[in-house]
Amino acid sequence: MEDPVKFERDWLPLVEKARKVQADSMVKEYMIPEDKLPSPDRLNVMGVPYEAGTMTDKELQITETPGYKLVAQMSKGELTAKEVLIAFVKRATIAQQLLNCATEFMFDDASARAEELDRYYSETGKTVGAMHGLPISVKEHLHIAGKVSAAGYVSYLAQEPAKEDFLHLSILKKAGAVPFVRTNEPQSLLHIDSDNNIWGMVKNGNNLRLSAGGSSGGEGALVGFHGSPVGLGSDIGGSIRVPAAFNGAYGFRPTGARVSGKGNTVAGAGQITIMCSYGPLTQSIEDIDLYMDTMTAGKPWINDVTLPIMPWKKPEVPSKMKIAVLWDDGIVAPTPPIQRGLKMVVEKLKSAGNEIVDMEAIMAGDLVEAYCASLMADGGKCVVEALAESGEKWHELTKFAMSLGKPISAEEQWNMNHIRDVVRQAWHDKLNADGIDFILCPIFMSVSPPQKQADYLMYSALFNGLDMPSTVFPTGLFVDPAVDGWDGSHEARNDIEKTQHAKYDAEYSVGAPIALQLVGRHFCDEDVIAGTKAIVSLL
Amino acid sequence: MEDPVKFERDWLPLVEKARKVQADSMVKEYMIPEDKLPSPDRLNVMGVPYEAGTMTDKELQITETPGYKLVAQMSKGELTAKEVLIAFVKRATIAQQLLNCATEFMFDDASARAEELDRYYSETGKTVGAMHGLPISVKEHLHIAGKVSAAGYVSYLAQEPAKEDFLHLSILKKAGAVPFVRTNEPQSLLHIDSDNNIWGMVKNGNNLRLSAGGSSGGEGALVGFHGSPVGLGSDIGGSIRVPAAFNGAYGFRPTGARVSGKGNTVAGAGQITIMCSYGPLTQSIEDIDLYMDTMTAGKPWINDVTLPIMPWKKPEVPSKMKIAVLWDDGIVAPTPPIQRGLKMVVEKLKSAGNEIVDMEAIMAGDLVEAYCASLMADGGKCVVEALAESGEKWHELTKFAMSLGKPISAEEQWNMNHIRDVVRQAWHDKLNADGIDFILCPIFMSVSPPQKQADYLMYSALFNGLDMPSTVFPTGLFVDPAVDGWDGSHEARNDIEKTQHAKYDAEYSVGAPIALQLVGRHFCDEDVIAGTKAIVSLL
Repeated sequence: MEDPVKFERDWLPLVEKARKVQADSMVKEYMIPEDKLPSPDRLNVMGVPYEAGTMTDKELQITETPGYKLVAQMSKGELTAKEVLIAFVKRATIAQQLLNCATEFMFDDASARAEELDRYYSETGKTVGAMHGLPISVKEHLHIAGKVSAAGYVSYLAQEPAKEDFLHLSILKKAGAVPFVRTNEPQSLLHIDSDNNIWGMVKNGNNLRLSAGGSSGGEGALVGFHGSPVGLGSDIGGSIRVPAAFNGAYGFRPTGARVSGKGNTVAGAGQITIMCSYGPLTQSIEDIDLYMDTMTAGKPWINDVTLPIMPWKKPEVPSKMKIAVLWDDGIVAPTPPIQRGLKMVVEKLKSAGNEIVDMEAIMAGDLVEAYCASLMADGGKCVVEALAESGEKWHELTKFAMSLGKPISAEEQWNMNHIRDVVRQAWHDKLNADGIDFILCPIFMSVSPPQKQADYLMYSALFNGLDMPSTVFPTGLFVDPAVDGWDGSHEARNDIEKTQHAKYDAEYSVGAPIALQLVGRHFCDEDVIAGTKAIVSLL
Repeated sequence: MEDPVKFERDWLPLVEKARKVQADSMVKEYMIPEDKLPSPDRLNVMGVPYEAGTMTDKELQITETPGYKLVAQMSKGELTAKEVLIAFVKRATIAQQLLNCATEFMFDDASARAEELDRYYSETGKTVGAMHGLPISVKEHLHIAGKVSAAGYVSYLAQEPAKEDFLHLSILKKAGAVPFVRTNEPQSLLHIDSDNNIWGMVKNGNNLRLSAGGSSGGEGALVGFHGSPVGLGSDIGGSIRVPAAFNGAYGFRPTGARVSGKGNTVAGAGQITIMCSYGPLTQSIEDIDLYMDTMTAGKPWINDVTLPIMPWKKPEVPSKMKIAVLWDDGIVAPTPPIQRGLKMVVEKLKSAGNEIVDMEAIMAGDLVEAYCASLMADGGKCVVEALAESGEKWHELTKFAMSLGKPISAEEQWNMNHIRDVVRQAWHDKLNADGIDFILCPIFMSVSPPQKQADYLMYSALFNGLDMPSTVFPTGLFVDPAVDGWDGSHEARNDIEKTQHAKYDAEYSVGAPIALQLVGRHFCDEDVIAGTKAIVSLL
């Protein structure tokens, strides 16, 4: 499996080349000089853009303006695509220096496109589409024409460059989005942390000791840092939502079949029990709507045979919502800051006249067992082979992922599929029977844990198994050791809980964003986004 | 496996009970007296309703009027639901005496419901919905509350009665449809012929020597005989379309995810690679539209978590269509009558200004291999077990079905899924690239073959593998030995073709309906029905 000799001899040159591409792609004049970088013992670096002196006030302001507002300003001629791009490239450059979130900047192409859009606007007075001039970041494994995607494997660096853009991306580009940077991810794409043998660990700007989450960890760190207004990620177990949560961004995992996966690279083609879902990480809930509306308006079903024809519709959300709160999955209770976040949001919802009921995680254990067995139904062979080709070192979290399953027969797979379907129907029936609009719950059992330790998937993967659309939103709260410490009242109910709870310490995690998840009905993506908007407006 | 002793001892009583239910459920006064039944050497019995003396002219006319027109007449008070029901029960009774197409009449319940609808109409002047008063037949394996479904297995006779109606059916009932008879099907539901150890062989009224097709063979025989205006069937390899074709009815296999399968019984739950699709057999193409519109208007996705939310939309079909003709699958060329039907339809289409191009069956061999491997990925274990429980005798076509696959691993299943997806995308790309609206092709390599011999699935199962919606429509032609014989010009290209072609003899198959298939894009069900309407209007 691991083969350091082969790796050093045959593959290190390719890795070094990839790292050189990464380093060379940075815009040197936007970088903070070495001597002005923050001190290594500083944990929270979110304020550095204000201190570094590389960005103007206007640029800082641009990068903290939601994407939909930037598009509106560009459509009125108040901003140019080029200046918006430069603002984000500057902030993303700082992010990269501090957080290692990018694998490659694409400044020349992005500049050319932004200039083209500005010319078009100045000649016609019109925008090209709903994302005119909006810079976007793209998770590395999603294909961009002419680029190789490592997708978390050293061996993939030897693959041919992609012939065409990921369909998703091509639709956003047609609507005027300007891809400007590719973002980092974990080995195998199967961690909810982001470290690999090519570009290394992504860090969390809120607390450099903590995980940036994964697998869209580069996106999470970058968007959370305001280095990109909208990022493209993918989520088969939490990979959009967990990094959004850990870094204080918004994230959305659409219903699998609402979004196209055409033109991406992953190990394990033909695994159809649990769909990978592609979606946005953003700085505002409105931009999730913008992204989904734009993407759907591009009619991906014309080119992607797998998709039902479902235009983006007007959401149906009652003025007083009925929200079921899943306080605890029954295995690992959320840590104090997540409980504080839940209570705060529930109080605000109640005060605004919404109805709150409690909910249990129906058959969650069965579903997550079927989920793991299905994802690993080849015994992880596709992953093992992709790793073995280069002989690269296995990360601990890859070993953990590989431990979740074993090779099974197709008949056993049928049983897993059947369990999946029974559990999905049971949740659907529960929502119908009780008239529940949405489920509010944690996205992870805690705030961001220390690096290399995030491995509890229940709160996120549950909704991949259920294929229910779900948003992640920051509560606006951050870990405060004065109120978020363990108070000794909770006795671990089992070994898993004991192990997981041991990863949280309020002092260590100081400053970590506290985020929550809102879950809607299968295929009712519009509604859960609208429901999240309603919640966010209360915070 | 087979265990005649156990069967006779433990199971024959249950079988006899089921047969008694069948016999007792017939309305005796509507039956043709034994001595007035047609002579046993008469092949075509389609005219018997006109000769039997049990039906009035008005009743004969009702049973030959498309369902949508009957509903229109009932909504104007020109017909009552009760008289429409009686007309169909009378004709279905004759069908049953001649063709063995029904497993149970439900006359009392149907009468009560028809009377209730008539009362509602006379009190309010309104209908209850789009299928007000329309009698419908239901394939036996689809659940009806309070009834046991054998689903092709003797052992299932011991199951508990269904607690609720198949969701599909409950939606049609709410819209006013009146289920009045359950229809016969083959052992295991895996034949495109219809014989089982409970109720025996379904016959084809056009030529009693020929197969009625399957697995919705009872539906095909009954609807083709005008014994039901609309029948509910299921199709995982041709099971709606083949019997529709063999008996001169219309049939429609919707895109799998456009229709609900909630509440049915089949062996092999959790097999998700090839979806079983549920849909109508009718006497007119307009009634397929009525059925799908009514079913979709019932919003099955509210109760069935698996369905995307796709209301029935206005079809988009150009006035001049571009139709690709798949003349030959490359393995077994269609027999002379099917070729005659294809040529006739193509000429009519051309004369009307439509564009015709030729098309090949892209990667069809790969897809059908993946199809068979996937359906039988448990090595047929679920079927074998359901048969072994009662020790019932295996039919030859069950043995054939069991020979199509072997137990495979989940990893092999992934490969099959991947092939499926690659081939689906290739067909979709081909239609896009060439601007093709629909594909015209055979549904079977021939007209109905002799009983117990239908086992060539390529032309039907191909589109289950592709999950493309497809209609079957009668061309209005029937086998005529004067023009449909082998002319010696076609040399068998392989052993399969030799074997299959040997099953066709124009003299033997005299009078068999000649039907064809029209195929549309995945999820574009509305369009392919509209395209079929345009073709039917030319015939």
